Amino acid sequence: MTDSVKFFLPEEKMPKAWYNLAADLPVPLPPPLHPATGQPLGPDDLAPIFPQAVIAQEMTSERWVDIPEPVLDVYRLWRPAPLIRAKRLEKALGTPAKIFFKYEGVSPAGSHKPNTAVPQAFYNQQEGVKRLSTETGAGQWGSSLAFAGSLFGIEVEVFMVKISYNQKPYRRALMETYGARCIASPSTLTNSGRAILEKDPNSNGSLGIAISEAVEVAATRDDTKYALGSVLNHVCLHQTIIGEEAMMQMEMADAAPDVVVACTGGGSNFAGLAFPYIRENIKNGGKTRIVAVEPASCPTLTKGQYAYDFGDTGHLTPLVKMHTLGSTFMPPGSHAGGLRYHGMAPMVSHVKELGLCEARAFAQTECFAAAITFARAEGIVPAPESSHAIKGAIEEALRCKAEGKAETILFNLSGHGHFDMQAYTDYFAGNLKDLPYDEAALETALSELPNLG
Amino acid sequence: MTDSVKFFLPEEKMPKAWYNLAADLPVPLPPPLHPATGQPLGPDDLAPIFPQAVIAQEMTSERWVDIPEPVLDVYRLWRPAPLIRAKRLEKALGTPAKIFFKYEGVSPAGSHKPNTAVPQAFYNQQEGVKRLSTETGAGQWGSSLAFAGSLFGIEVEVFMVKISYNQKPYRRALMETYGARCIASPSTLTNSGRAILEKDPNSNGSLGIAISEAVEVAATRDDTKYALGSVLNHVCLHQTIIGEEAMMQMEMADAAPDVVVACTGGGSNFAGLAFPYIRENIKNGGKTRIVAVEPASCPTLTKGQYAYDFGDTGHLTPLVKMHTLGSTFMPPGSHAGGLRYHGMAPMVSHVKELGLCEARAFAQTECFAAAITFARAEGIVPAPESSHAIKGAIEEALRCKAEGKAETILFNLSGHGHFDMQAYTDYFAGNLKDLPYDEAALETALSELPNLG
Repeated sequence: MTDSVKFFLPEEKMPKAWYNLAADLPVPLPPPLHPATGQPLGPDDLAPIFPQAVIAQEMTSERWVDIPEPVLDVYRLWRPAPLIRAKRLEKALGTPAKIFFKYEGVSPAGSHKPNTAVPQAFYNQQEGVKRLSTETGAGQWGSSLAFAGSLFGIEVEVFMVKISYNQKPYRRALMETYGARCIASPSTLTNSGRAILEKDPNSNGSLGIAISEAVEVAATRDDTKYALGSVLNHVCLHQTIIGEEAMMQMEMADAAPDVVVACTGGGSNFAGLAFPYIRENIKNGGKTRIVAVEPASCPTLTKGQYAYDFGDTGHLTPLVKMHTLGSTFMPPGSHAGGLRYHGMAPMVSHVKELGLCEARAFAQTECFAAAITFARAEGIVPAPESSHAIKGAIEEALRCKAEGKAETILFNLSGHGHFDMQAYTDYFAGNLKDLPYDEAALETALSELPNLG
Repeated sequence: MTDSVKFFLPEEKMPKAWYNLAADLPVPLPPPLHPATGQPLGPDDLAPIFPQAVIAQEMTSERWVDIPEPVLDVYRLWRPAPLIRAKRLEKALGTPAKIFFKYEGVSPAGSHKPNTAVPQAFYNQQEGVKRLSTETGAGQWGSSLAFAGSLFGIEVEVFMVKISYNQKPYRRALMETYGARCIASPSTLTNSGRAILEKDPNSNGSLGIAISEAVEVAATRDDTKYALGSVLNHVCLHQTIIGEEAMMQMEMADAAPDVVVACTGGGSNFAGLAFPYIRENIKNGGKTRIVAVEPASCPTLTKGQYAYDFGDTGHLTPLVKMHTLGSTFMPPGSHAGGLRYHGMAPMVSHVKELGLCEARAFAQTECFAAAITFARAEGIVPAPESSHAIKGAIEEALRCKAEGKAETILFNLSGHGHFDMQAYTDYFAGNLKDLPYDEAALETALSELPNLG
């Protein structure tokens, strides 16, 4: 164990390929189904909205997928991302555990999302796509795709849930700085948007509606495709550069994690850090515990059902097998907007079902308290989403303290909170509350899961 | 010239000493004077508000000042800061010039300010100081001192100009996240504050008033000292780690700058990057051009007078010889709050007077346009202050293009703009205007400079 606190991988050691866990799963992933036929989806079903290269990655079982040189070239603007030993946090907790974190907030948009936004923009540009449409809630994904679009000369249209559009003008300003167009959803630009506005002119919007608008735009314009920032296999694939780098950096630190922790919303930053370690557990006798942390207010992995369900509220997407709270379930508003999703990446759900990871849920006030402990020790102000991973890591560190064990903990700090300071303001003003979900509504939503006969 | 775009200095090569330009100046710096006696200031005059170690550094002519190990240990959280080749910006401009920038926005508080906040907090802690008081305008300095205080267990009280306190709640939230107390100034906590409020209960405050409040608190409480984030010699000293790192990193890149560019408000980030290059010009036959860039709305170096003046509006500080617009001059409100200062670091002014640097002024809209060109090419959204350095660098790159010269340009990107997105929102909404200063008011302010007989 060296004395350093910060481990930068030399640029020439940056991974040149993404890792695909599908190649090493002991049981294959259940396929996505066409909602009309109930039959497995083929590449042609996705062609209207995704470029061929992305569809191929969504369905491949190749173990390693080469990262194209122009994508590596953009990654080099901020990657390899640092691995940091949280010595001051260890001291503040009085734990014998060693705590490391991988810091993805160094990307220009401030989170792990550009890891997939950049290749998605690149593949679309290669296939002559002029414009990408997408949705965003809190804005992390929208700003990441806007950034990627600016580098590859692709126009980006972001349908931003109206309540966030109004509440988070600075995320919008960030997207516009990168040259993207940001539209409050529901909008009058699409049939889906107009239908909602006809019923309720004052609709605040929802992620489900924004997805419908973005997909509709992609499906109806020849020069436009759609991009998604989490959940899908190709997104998890692109994020594995996080774990591949972390593994090399932990070696530089003469350490190996006993437990790996990441937060889960759609599942992509968790997949990014955890999948390479899960491979080692499956193939090479690794014994690393893998812990997913989710909000207690949207407890997909801990309270959801593992079943085929729609990815969106409007039921425009294929059916995928995943842990779900039901596509009609509306999680209470929380500041971790990036974790407010009724479903979970099918690959992450599968891994959970196979017993290859654990899951825990924490309430938002205890996550903010953890975030503040972290910020005062290490200086970095975390995103509300990432604070869940911090809370999970601190719990493990305190367990080590109670048990007198010097274990090594590695967590993913998926992003900074510079655009989320309203949440901190609310916390200090005592206006931030824990938000229990509606148990009856969850029961109803689960009872409405699609019946596949 | 390598193909890399990002140059990380290995941690073990991080400089272990700050560089003091005072040791190499061809003409000594005019001393600060006591306003009552007109005599040079002694260490005792500063003892009520600064710790001994800081006073010694303010007055030393030693060439190198060792950085204490506990300070190095905190610096390692983010330093060495990266040097980046802006290849995409070069391409966007179509210039044969090579453009490099040193990026100080990787610090936890997001700018170069922690480079001096950390040693100031450390030296105060060493001398048993329990509390630091300071002022802040836009909030960069206040949040940096709050961060440093949290690491060394020192309470921090920040008097924040009331209009900023109300307009920039997220900077305040950042300070509170680090555990600092943030007070709207003028406040009822000090005589200076109460006097102002008596005259005008709705006063919006000013940096001059906030300085008076912070200094009063330090001067009247035994356990409290004062900390300043720019202007003074010891602040410039602490910032030279920027230039010392950059010099080694430029070597890693097989390059050497023909021109070095930085923005100037109080002068500290400029001093940090430029002073080591000025040393090489003085001592080792270097021919690097050194360019300071300031706002046209607060043109201290380009339109100010080189004279003895007060550092604050309330005339509580010593008299220092500097370029000044007059201590009663009120620059128009602009988004580059960190550059709105009537004076300039005495050492920077001296360097300018000796012909060791040049100065240019740009209007804020052209600086924002430059910032957006930069963000779309390189991904990083700059602080409004730093956009002045970008504008300066782009002008040099376009000159190279016109002249067909492949010069090497190095500029300091002193911070990111994540907490300044209102400025970008205003820019895109067309609400951001150039703000000419009041020429008659400048004439008046200059006519009121102290008369030293």
